[in-house]
Amino acid sequence: MNRIVEDMSKNNKYLITGFSGFVSKHFLDYLNKYEPGAAVFGIDICRPSFNLADYRSLSIQFAKIDLLDKEALAKCFAAFQPNYIVHLAAASSVAYSWQEPAISFRNNTNVFLSLLEAIRKSGGDVKVLSVGSSEVYGNVPKKMLPIKEITPLNPLSPYAVARVAQEMISRVYVDNFHLKIVMTRSFNHIGPGQKDIFVISSFAKQMVEAKKKGLNKGQIVTGDVSIIRDFLDVRDVVRAYSSILKRGESGEVYNVCGGQGVVLRDVIEKIADIVGIKVTIKVNKELIRPSDNKIIIGSSNKIKHDLGWKPEISLERSLQDITRYWDENSN
Amino acid sequence: MNRIVEDMSKNNKYLITGFSGFVSKHFLDYLNKYEPGAAVFGIDICRPSFNLADYRSLSIQFAKIDLLDKEALAKCFAAFQPNYIVHLAAASSVAYSWQEPAISFRNNTNVFLSLLEAIRKSGGDVKVLSVGSSEVYGNVPKKMLPIKEITPLNPLSPYAVARVAQEMISRVYVDNFHLKIVMTRSFNHIGPGQKDIFVISSFAKQMVEAKKKGLNKGQIVTGDVSIIRDFLDVRDVVRAYSSILKRGESGEVYNVCGGQGVVLRDVIEKIADIVGIKVTIKVNKELIRPSDNKIIIGSSNKIKHDLGWKPEISLERSLQDITRYWDENSN
Repeated sequence: MNRIVEDMSKNNKYLITGFSGFVSKHFLDYLNKYEPGAAVFGIDICRPSFNLADYRSLSIQFAKIDLLDKEALAKCFAAFQPNYIVHLAAASSVAYSWQEPAISFRNNTNVFLSLLEAIRKSGGDVKVLSVGSSEVYGNVPKKMLPIKEITPLNPLSPYAVARVAQEMISRVYVDNFHLKIVMTRSFNHIGPGQKDIFVISSFAKQMVEAKKKGLNKGQIVTGDVSIIRDFLDVRDVVRAYSSILKRGESGEVYNVCGGQGVVLRDVIEKIADIVGIKVTIKVNKELIRPSDNKIIIGSSNKIKHDLGWKPEISLERSLQDITRYWDENSN
Repeated sequence: MNRIVEDMSKNNKYLITGFSGFVSKHFLDYLNKYEPGAAVFGIDICRPSFNLADYRSLSIQFAKIDLLDKEALAKCFAAFQPNYIVHLAAASSVAYSWQEPAISFRNNTNVFLSLLEAIRKSGGDVKVLSVGSSEVYGNVPKKMLPIKEITPLNPLSPYAVARVAQEMISRVYVDNFHLKIVMTRSFNHIGPGQKDIFVISSFAKQMVEAKKKGLNKGQIVTGDVSIIRDFLDVRDVVRAYSSILKRGESGEVYNVCGGQGVVLRDVIEKIADIVGIKVTIKVNKELIRPSDNKIIIGSSNKIKHDLGWKPEISLERSLQDITRYWDENSN
């Protein structure tokens, strides 16, 4: 058994950027379970809050590295020589990109470009997963739903522009420097451990906390709850990332989404049912963003057809796990 | 007369980035002639080689400022309060962008974003000319020539990606921060004073120098001379820039080109005729870039129709002036 693990590890060296984040943690869970013996080198600008020793079947190193630090990156490549890079590092808040467009842009596009330069200069044989965002599509008319990968890009925020630039840069590096890069356009994801700045996680936390205080009813203050979104559980997301990284074609881009739309109001009611609380929804008009897209549903046909991936975790199970998470991790 | 000049100057404050370059010098020539009394604040990372005192009808200041230096930019905006910004600063070499993609990208896109942030934070009422490049079109099939502004963008180099990002950022700032930005996609330009790293300038310089040495024949070593390009004289370019800046619609992009294609071999022969030298063309296959577009011709219909601009300087006159320039400025 040991021997098999060792053999596998030779081609299972993963460099993960944005290592300390929510998605990375779930990617480690996935590797821990399905790729025992894999070696992981995590980099981020802040330390992870999870415990590396929990991943018993993985060999994990972590280094605090800013991706714009060329020397540190070069050293990291020379020492670790990854087979795969999972590029999760991002300034992924659209709202922040409106406040600080230049910083947001740098922490998305320049950071990515710096990573590709490190790869190019290292000369290593490595395959990169460039995680992107469905924000690149902008507001897609109803008749063009679900959104396919061939839909014209229409970036409407500084964040979205940075993500389009990331894709264009990837294509240039694939075509000219022959780097192996697969790309995603990831739609909303949810799951246990997600920060409460994200809508579903926030609602679940509020309701769990109300319940803990002994309340049987509560109020959720929110923006427009009639919007329809395509939520995918983070565990399905990381499984999709692994499929794309292993079997995706270099230069190709894949939607990562469930392919199903759900009304935000229904999600809130499902969470309330799970928690066992009666919730009234109070719409705060100031929280309604006028440019917000009413309906976002992605088509997952390409990833299903080309890579055989499909979502496995139902919305109900996802919400149960999120609720349980907050039950264990809130006041 | 003095009074008119003073009145005009109130709305004629130009901030010019990339001030020390070739196009800037010609833009100053234009202002000096057609907008006496205009005030100019030039910024660049290197000092201009031309003499500011030569522009007698303009009031010119220069400051060595890196556009990524937020504080310096903020001070400059507060002190000068420009009405117009002519953004010429760029790392405009495609070849360099292949060598140093990250630096090239930063010196195009990040620099531009930093400029827009300074404008946004200054809150001033200013109109920006965002100079871009025809490189954003990539290789356009022959049947789609001449290239119109609605042609899909297909950036094939890091430089071209940076230029597309610049356009996308401009749109986001126009739509959401209500900045006034007009954009160009500028095709090849030529003219007296252009550095000899550019093909036409280089050929002219070589022939003039050969002639000065008393030679009646010479050899030009070059890449593919059968390529067709749309060359526009820099003096027509700056007149187009002024038209777009003054009367172009915010958020719109305009091709700046002559609309005529000319075979590179014919240009070489025309220069040889002007210089009075017999030239043999030696093709060095290593100088042929395989990805080079065979034919690039832009459509200038939009700028002609919307703004009434049209080119006024013939290729012959342009080549004569370039030749004269090298006659006066070479060994």
